[in-house]
Amino acid sequence: MVKQALPIYDDELKRDAQARLSRIEGQVRGIAKMLDDDRQCLEVLQQLASLQASLKGVTKTVLRNYLERCATDAIRGNDPAIYDQLIDVIFKFAK
Amino acid sequence: MVKQALPIYDDELKRDAQARLSRIEGQVRGIAKMLDDDRQCLEVLQQLASLQASLKGVTKTVLRNYLERCATDAIRGNDPAIYDQLIDVIFKFAK
Amino acid sequence: MVKQALPIYDDELKRDAQARLSRIEGQVRGIAKMLDDDRQCLEVLQQLASLQASLKGVTKTVLRNYLERCATDAIRGNDPAIYDQLIDVIFKFAK
Amino acid sequence: MVKQALPIYDDELKRDAQARLSRIEGQVRGIAKMLDDDRQCLEVLQQLASLQASLKGVTKTVLRNYLERCATDAIRGNDPAIYDQLIDVIFKFAK
Repeated sequence: MVKQALPIYDDELKRDAQARLSRIEGQVRGIAKMLDDDRQCLEVLQQLASLQASLKGVTKTVLRNYLERCATDAIRGNDPAIYDQLIDVIFKFAK
Repeated sequence: MVKQALPIYDDELKRDAQARLSRIEGQVRGIAKMLDDDRQCLEVLQQLASLQASLKGVTKTVLRNYLERCATDAIRGNDPAIYDQLIDVIFKFAK
Repeated sequence: MVKQALPIYDDELKRDAQARLSRIEGQVRGIAKMLDDDRQCLEVLQQLASLQASLKGVTKTVLRNYLERCATDAIRGNDPAIYDQLIDVIFKFAK
Repeated sequence: MVKQALPIYDDELKRDAQARLSRIEGQVRGIAKMLDDDRQCLEVLQQLASLQASLKGVTKTVLRNYLERCATDAIRGNDPAIYDQLIDVIFKFAK
């Protein structure tokens, strides 16, 4: 029997990330509409901040998947290079 | 003759912000597709970071318009409350 | 009689910034002591986050002084280059 | 014979963090002096940004120690709660 490798993404995390990306698409269109309608700058900035928070939500989801699926194997396998990669990934993406 | 108030948005800044939002919408769909295709976590995180950079570009554009059109009038009009608002807006939105 | 230019710093803002810097110095020494005492990483990280928040407080104070004393003159004097400088300063320092 | 647990901090990481904290203390005093000397706001803001970068350096060092010493044991021990803690720690401290 063929050994099946674990897929890259956890099913639930993937669905969660995709649902978040759909909402983000809607938020982006909403902001374009606000500009069309000449809504106040501060209202538009507020919506851009909400969009940034949503984006952080997806990033968290994908980063978690990276930790659970990719980093975990390397840590268990005693690969010392994983810590350089982890620190690099964390400071590059977790803002 | 009726005095015409300056519109909220500078025409060029508005077009620039809208062009950026269109590109962002494309980036969001691209990332959803990457998840469908089971692309590596680090590649997806990289694209999420690009998306965040694009979002910062729109925020900069709208913040600039706020400074040029809204804050400028208040500063010229010697409204001391503008500095509290400015500091608040800057630390809330300029990340 | 000689016209006295406004000093660079507002007296109260300066005292406020200096008081904050004194506290920050104490926090830095406290963290070095925590490492000497082998305190848990998460406790040390928490104190580093407090230090970062204190640092943001000083930055806010100095940025406010910049807006009130430097940027204001340029905006009132209709110097269009001030907006490029403002956006630059804001995105460089307000994080 | 008594089993010796691994100390919380790696010796080299600890020395590195303490050297960085010493330099940070010097930077803090330097900035207080700049204010005393009425140096330009933008110069002071620049030094505050350098200080923030130094602080990020210490945070990176301590976070790395956390990953190598604390998180690693939990991941190898199959403790699923470690991922919630990791994501929490990463987004709280890695900015």
